[in-house]
Amino acid sequence: MELRDVLVVLVEPLYEINLGYVARAMKNFGFTELVLVDPKCTVGDEARKYAMHGRDLLERVRIADSLTDVLREVDLAVGTTGKTGGRRCYHRKYVTPEELGELLAETEGRAAILFGREDIGLTNEILRRCDLVATIPASEEYPVLNLSHAVAVVLYEVYKAIKKKKPERRLSSKEDRERLLECFDEVMRRFAIPPHRAEKAKLVLRRLMGRAGATKEEVSALLYVLRRISRS
Amino acid sequence: MELRDVLVVLVEPLYEINLGYVARAMKNFGFTELVLVDPKCTVGDEARKYAMHGRDLLERVRIADSLTDVLREVDLAVGTTGKTGGRRCYHRKYVTPEELGELLAETEGRAAILFGREDIGLTNEILRRCDLVATIPASEEYPVLNLSHAVAVVLYEVYKAIKKKKPERRLSSKEDRERLLECFDEVMRRFAIPPHRAEKAKLVLRRLMGRAGATKEEVSALLYVLRRISRS
Repeated sequence: MELRDVLVVLVEPLYEINLGYVARAMKNFGFTELVLVDPKCTVGDEARKYAMHGRDLLERVRIADSLTDVLREVDLAVGTTGKTGGRRCYHRKYVTPEELGELLAETEGRAAILFGREDIGLTNEILRRCDLVATIPASEEYPVLNLSHAVAVVLYEVYKAIKKKKPERRLSSKEDRERLLECFDEVMRRFAIPPHRAEKAKLVLRRLMGRAGATKEEVSALLYVLRRISRS
Repeated sequence: MELRDVLVVLVEPLYEINLGYVARAMKNFGFTELVLVDPKCTVGDEARKYAMHGRDLLERVRIADSLTDVLREVDLAVGTTGKTGGRRCYHRKYVTPEELGELLAETEGRAAILFGREDIGLTNEILRRCDLVATIPASEEYPVLNLSHAVAVVLYEVYKAIKKKKPERRLSSKEDRERLLECFDEVMRRFAIPPHRAEKAKLVLRRLMGRAGATKEEVSALLYVLRRISRS
């Protein structure tokens, strides 16, 4: 799925501020389709204010009278809930946002992610109609996130999964790093560092670069310094 | 690290509503220590309203006059930024919230995660003082999340990682690393490395150690070598 294939559906939202925040979070993560089912507030100035650069999503928002209409146009209905405690219900076997992201990323079709109203969440009846239910792992003491924050976390995971295929930064090459390590070695020999100490220091530098995923540029910056030292 | 070892630091926050939302998100993910550096708003009724069951965090909030005071008590300072675009800066090699979570989960010590003010974020000067910088992968079109949503996403990842793992290695202390960086500086001065090159190399070394979560032992191994060079 692509981001445009995922509808964000707010069921009976109560507060304008949350419409704004949700639109902003959607824009942050590249989602485009916001649907409101039987909203209890208007899409007004306050919503627009908090939407910031996500305002265009509010202009294109769709208002649906019933959830049935919305679910008819998607292949997968995803419920969300913060209340996972208590008795186990057969219809409540949860996935994490991470698992949801992977699932959406590796499938084709259209999906709707449903978020319930601020005070009661999605009803059991609605959860039963969903194909799966996602919940955000959180503190047992207080697992219920604010609506827009729950949306942000879920969309963040879905975005990550859908975008994952592309590498983000350019690692330094093995040769770059070997050149740096050799030069380090040379410097250490020149300053009569005992071999076992030098060996260890070299391994440390190798490991730091490895774990940090050192870039080409970073390796060059250090190489420059070591070369100057070794030639002086 | 445990959740209690991670300070959430808001630098010059402007709006009460965000203090509330941040406290709630912290409570949702089990974090306990909120620090405000030079806040531009009060911790008042609006903050308490939006904090919901996270109100107790606001009662225990600490107000610091300077960031220096806060950074003194932690081993690792983590900056956050939403502005990763534009020209590539050597001092801005980012980690994802996921990578940050793993790093914190597998090390021991104390860390502070810094979030900048709503309008300008963290300044470059502050980012330079951080051991590593995290950024939330987001849409290029509009990558800047609302403050409290950014906090929620970052804390969610750290929570997930800490709940998943046991600490494996002991992080080097801030002092250990500063000592190493000073010594590196000394060596570079001695070998007449041009100041801007030296500055850059120093920042690279700081970032590599930060991102890699350099251990005490690793820092000592490098310090030994640099000391020998500086004294020869």
